[in-house]
Amino acid sequence: MTTTAHALVSSDDVNGTDVYGRDGTHIGAIDHLMIDKQSGKVAYAVMGFGGFLGIGEEHHPIPWNKLTYEPAQGGFVTDLTEAQVQGAPARQDGWYADRDWERRTHEHYGVPMYWI
Amino acid sequence: MTTTAHALVSSDDVNGTDVYGRDGTHIGAIDHLMIDKQSGKVAYAVMGFGGFLGIGEEHHPIPWNKLTYEPAQGGFVTDLTEAQVQGAPARQDGWYADRDWERRTHEHYGVPMYWI
Repeated sequence: MTTTAHALVSSDDVNGTDVYGRDGTHIGAIDHLMIDKQSGKVAYAVMGFGGFLGIGEEHHPIPWNKLTYEPAQGGFVTDLTEAQVQGAPARQDGWYADRDWERRTHEHYGVPMYWI
Repeated sequence: MTTTAHALVSSDDVNGTDVYGRDGTHIGAIDHLMIDKQSGKVAYAVMGFGGFLGIGEEHHPIPWNKLTYEPAQGGFVTDLTEAQVQGAPARQDGWYADRDWERRTHEHYGVPMYWI
């Protein structure tokens, strides 16, 4: 068997994958992913932030392109800041089908839009 | 709100998404997805086939590129045949990290490899 370094994960197991800051600080964990069914690309990681935001467990959708998977750490690394998360466009019901919100959110985080 | 036709689905909710043949026959359902953590692309849909294979519920990993999401049907459409599924390379433990198996499987189904 040619075992490779690439990491496939089951959609059942993404919950709880850890997310770290560039300095190695644990800042949260993935709660679930939002997947674009047509392209098969992950669009958002909905993350739970514990102490990071200092306001109890909060869930925020973070554009996938903001996260980098680091096999050595077994988790994702991001340069996300608390100010970025708190200043992100507010989401309402149906945010995941609201292209205007999606565009503003990707611009806010400074990452390429997943649908382009 | 600018609602769009694109469909995002939560990784928690992919279980049970239906898969139809080109002629509209229901051939199975998604059990879970296997996601490449580094690229954020879905690599496989692990599908459950009921009557389609006539041998009880069997789970088989199908390359994502073999499935097309059809919003109008609320499910995936594929030209997968029973012979293709039965003739696919056998999988062993660790198949999702066995690049040789992955290559043979994509060649068998005649679809582009997700990592290229």
